Amino acid sequence: MRAEHINPFVSSLKNAFQTMLACEARRGELTLKTSHRAEHFVSGVIGLSGLAVGTVVVSLSKEVALKVASTMLDAEASEINDDVLDAVGELANVVAGAAKSQLEEYHMTVSLPSVITGEGHEIHFPSNVRPICIHFHTDWGPLTLEVGLAAVPEPVEA
Amino acid sequence: MRAEHINPFVSSLKNAFQTMLACEARRGELTLKTSHRAEHFVSGVIGLSGLAVGTVVVSLSKEVALKVASTMLDAEASEINDDVLDAVGELANVVAGAAKSQLEEYHMTVSLPSVITGEGHEIHFPSNVRPICIHFHTDWGPLTLEVGLAAVPEPVEA
Repeated sequence: MRAEHINPFVSSLKNAFQTMLACEARRGELTLKTSHRAEHFVSGVIGLSGLAVGTVVVSLSKEVALKVASTMLDAEASEINDDVLDAVGELANVVAGAAKSQLEEYHMTVSLPSVITGEGHEIHFPSNVRPICIHFHTDWGPLTLEVGLAAVPEPVEA
Repeated sequence: MRAEHINPFVSSLKNAFQTMLACEARRGELTLKTSHRAEHFVSGVIGLSGLAVGTVVVSLSKEVALKVASTMLDAEASEINDDVLDAVGELANVVAGAAKSQLEEYHMTVSLPSVITGEGHEIHFPSNVRPICIHFHTDWGPLTLEVGLAAVPEPVEA
């Protein structure tokens, strides 16, 4: 992962929180993943493919997921239900979609989001791809963004 | 999900088991998912994108995952380690890659695989996409294939 590949995802996440949620996401530390354990209870996962391939994970605590959904849906969400999971998937979609627009040289498109829940679920990237994990702080609580991206050796037919 | 979209994934899974693993995967029942709970302990997840977008999940019991990895790596795997998870990701990659070749009108490419583990992890698709779950039986044990795919309303730039 090169820094110029990470920055579009970081700015997209900050922008998504600012514009969709009117919430400031402050960037914290950046780490290489040493454990596969998801940082938080709810993870929105989205695939990117094109001339680079990758996976983006937006991992939220229950509290942050509920706040995100309540704000996006303009209706109080008090439990993790399908609406909340859709909101988390949509957030991952917006972050990945905006970031890939900034990485247009890779002609990437995004997959359908899937949302993983479960205490202690683990999301493993292929062992030759070391995803970068960026921690963010919001007034609602913490969240993390994980990005693993690899250029495709040969151009694929799009 | 239309049947003609499912069949390429079913045949790709059967072929992958036959050719890569010399193991017959017999198709069992096909169900619409009513629970989000993953069918088995290890799930290989891969995104597809292009003129259709989707997610493919290949979910294996620990026993089947170990047998898949042992056969692919030609070395006995006795615990769920990075090599086993890579093998499961590669299996998902082969299944999705072969299927998308049969769905060439959608010009899809595949994302990086990610592999989810954890007792009782749940993989949620967006609520407007009802994934189809196909059960398979092998001499190693059971596995499932889940596919959620949706055509993109307007052609996207590739």
